[in-house]
Amino acid sequence: MIDQGHIAALTGILGDKGIVTEPGDMAAYETGARYDEGRAALVLRPQTTEEVSAAVGYCVKNGIALIPQSGNTGLVSGATPDATGAQAVLSLDRMTQRFEVDLDNRSLRAGAGLRLSDVNQKLEKHGLFFPIDLGADPRLGGMLATNTGGSRFLKYGDVRRNALGIKVVLADESGTVLDLTSELRKNNTGIDWKQIFIGTSGAFGIITECVLNLEPLPKQVATAYLVPASGAHVMPLLRAMEDRLGAYLSAFEGMSKNSVAAALDHAPSLKNPFQGGKVPDYVILAEVSRTWEPREGEQSLDSVLETVLAEIWESDDAPLADAFVGPAHEMWALRHALSEGVKHSGKLIAFDLSFRRGDIMAFCDRMKDEMPHTFPEVTICDFGHIGDGGVHFNLVVPKDSGSAADKDFERRLRDRVFAIAVQDFNGSFSAEHAIGRKNQAYYDLYTQQKIKDMAQGLKAITSPGDLGTVRFG
Amino acid sequence: MIDQGHIAALTGILGDKGIVTEPGDMAAYETGARYDEGRAALVLRPQTTEEVSAAVGYCVKNGIALIPQSGNTGLVSGATPDATGAQAVLSLDRMTQRFEVDLDNRSLRAGAGLRLSDVNQKLEKHGLFFPIDLGADPRLGGMLATNTGGSRFLKYGDVRRNALGIKVVLADESGTVLDLTSELRKNNTGIDWKQIFIGTSGAFGIITECVLNLEPLPKQVATAYLVPASGAHVMPLLRAMEDRLGAYLSAFEGMSKNSVAAALDHAPSLKNPFQGGKVPDYVILAEVSRTWEPREGEQSLDSVLETVLAEIWESDDAPLADAFVGPAHEMWALRHALSEGVKHSGKLIAFDLSFRRGDIMAFCDRMKDEMPHTFPEVTICDFGHIGDGGVHFNLVVPKDSGSAADKDFERRLRDRVFAIAVQDFNGSFSAEHAIGRKNQAYYDLYTQQKIKDMAQGLKAITSPGDLGTVRFG
Repeated sequence: MIDQGHIAALTGILGDKGIVTEPGDMAAYETGARYDEGRAALVLRPQTTEEVSAAVGYCVKNGIALIPQSGNTGLVSGATPDATGAQAVLSLDRMTQRFEVDLDNRSLRAGAGLRLSDVNQKLEKHGLFFPIDLGADPRLGGMLATNTGGSRFLKYGDVRRNALGIKVVLADESGTVLDLTSELRKNNTGIDWKQIFIGTSGAFGIITECVLNLEPLPKQVATAYLVPASGAHVMPLLRAMEDRLGAYLSAFEGMSKNSVAAALDHAPSLKNPFQGGKVPDYVILAEVSRTWEPREGEQSLDSVLETVLAEIWESDDAPLADAFVGPAHEMWALRHALSEGVKHSGKLIAFDLSFRRGDIMAFCDRMKDEMPHTFPEVTICDFGHIGDGGVHFNLVVPKDSGSAADKDFERRLRDRVFAIAVQDFNGSFSAEHAIGRKNQAYYDLYTQQKIKDMAQGLKAITSPGDLGTVRFG
Repeated sequence: MIDQGHIAALTGILGDKGIVTEPGDMAAYETGARYDEGRAALVLRPQTTEEVSAAVGYCVKNGIALIPQSGNTGLVSGATPDATGAQAVLSLDRMTQRFEVDLDNRSLRAGAGLRLSDVNQKLEKHGLFFPIDLGADPRLGGMLATNTGGSRFLKYGDVRRNALGIKVVLADESGTVLDLTSELRKNNTGIDWKQIFIGTSGAFGIITECVLNLEPLPKQVATAYLVPASGAHVMPLLRAMEDRLGAYLSAFEGMSKNSVAAALDHAPSLKNPFQGGKVPDYVILAEVSRTWEPREGEQSLDSVLETVLAEIWESDDAPLADAFVGPAHEMWALRHALSEGVKHSGKLIAFDLSFRRGDIMAFCDRMKDEMPHTFPEVTICDFGHIGDGGVHFNLVVPKDSGSAADKDFERRLRDRVFAIAVQDFNGSFSAEHAIGRKNQAYYDLYTQQKIKDMAQGLKAITSPGDLGTVRFG
């Protein structure tokens, strides 16, 4: 679809290694991590911001649509080309050269193509890390473009909170480079433009470099499984933990019985940690952590956690039915196995929702009441980040059921779940996965017209070219 | 300058209490907290978002320039009218009705006219607070519009980090209300538009309501004065404290000898805490805090701090020359007296700068070297927030010197200090006071043209009316 003249010109800009046109080599860039398959006209793999700028400028001038792609681990079709074969993928996977740690400033300047795992491995010797904890292993540019949150949001916040600066290439005819990088934490000298590019899936520009806040690595970690006395006791339990642990508390993750059962079923190497193997209706994984090595005479973190749980246990109207401290790696292993377990238990229709913290359990109860009547073939396998209001609300239908193959069934289910989440609970239809093609229809439905008009205006003043999978305007 | 017809119409919208036209009554709205005096055509005092919307719509339609004003505690002429007497001040001081705490969510929905001190007083019984610690007592709308930081940024971040949502009235002919309020922490369903209004001094819209993150109140606090072995030891000292205290560490404030001496001089009730009354060249106030009541058998926080200081004291190339733990209220009293003390020691020319943390002391050294040659009448009285890179770089000239009365002297001094801070150190010319008329020339000088063009475009799609003191475009 893109003629040889363009391919030659782009090869001139990016070099032989910077361009992929063989169908076999392009496949990895055309297929999403879990969903989605498209067809790319070609794949551009620039190595520097200057190369991105030159390639983007060329494409905009010549009307070539661009899909920025980072680690390609997203779940909302935000980085894969569509089926037309007319779009060029611009991959960040070679933007890995820059890696400059500033120890005094606790910050990192890095290329947007570095993977989270590589970043944290390189930082380990300095006792620092980029504190976003995810199931996937994305590249930095995509983490910024989707504003990922993860399991330790409660303590460290999301990517937005930890982004000090970014460098962006705009999709205009010059491939304008906006240098919004900065090592500064306090800086109020105008509009904080970087915010416009964070969480917007590359629709307004391509992030090529970033400056990130780093945090001291935890050196002590303790975890416990908490069984709340009832769904209504989950919030009192969280508040009791926050009151007694403050900034020690680094995770407070909820796991429903169905999601735990699916994980144990799928991964037989996992230990079933519950008495008599009986999985409770709902379990919370609580984590506390400290950044220093254990000190002589200091109460161990396990013991601190036990003390706090005993205090809560003995309080009036105790929100706990059961609780036990256990090895962090085992407890997290189960938590991290939920996603795959649920995926293998049938056809998965996944929702990445968020609520006011106090509404999470109410929403889940509402769905448990309603689903058997409206969608009886569905099993609810929710889990999530109670501490920050995020819920991975997973619905599973048997693979051999008629519904599993029925596209309209999935659409009706999505419409219904989002309507309840957004309209009845003022919740979010995308907590931490951003928009992408997958959520486009719900953005269109739930966004007020003035906001869409403003987005269109913003597009015109930043990246008028055809960029990304999402239309905000 | 505004005719009786307009006054009658605006009185019709806002009621008698909602409009001020008597010169005596307007004076408080025409005079800034420390600098600046202007003249208002009239003062509008709406009580609800709907009233703001109606009044703003009327003013835009009739070409009446609006200056939004919140607590009027800013230091950069961001909220006072100019000298023409043609501008209407729109004060938030009656927007105080809404105050809704969500304990489960740890969040507050509040009117933008509430003062920080009132908010925190009302929250105290819930064991929560809005964790921005400032010398002044602003109203919430202004805190959002300037993105204030303060002394505990190191632990809690700035206003931006703690803002979950805002409601904004745009300066267009309809007075469009943008409801960007939300109690959600994780929400990535489009552009995070609220970011555009945070830190931009009301140039793009008037914030009328907000939803804020709250934090558990500290129940234990311990403080120490640390004397670094030298300027070069300040960063190793900070890093040693961060490694050993993690999220306990809630402040790390630097105070120069001159600023401490000025405070002790101005406020004789303050105890001189230093041995023999000898103020060291540089002192750091470190604070650690915990959110729970002391537990039986738990090491006291004073003792934790002493343990940590002993560890640092005994380390190789120890960064400490002296250190002592003392009562938090006394130690903070001296810190909080610095600003007034410096102000009374002569004519103050103040700079609100920030740097990479590792550059703070280098910048101060550079200025100490240079100033005696270029501006010999100046005394440097710096203090600041070492933990986040902020420096209140205060220069004082004797009140009776020729320079004190010389406007051109001040301009030359500002130009020179900013040139070194911004050009040589990649620092910020406004760390936490935002722009305002006072910093407009430096925004114009140090902002790239593309960013100004984008700001102009943003203005057109949000608030085309004449709003605020700053021109970003």
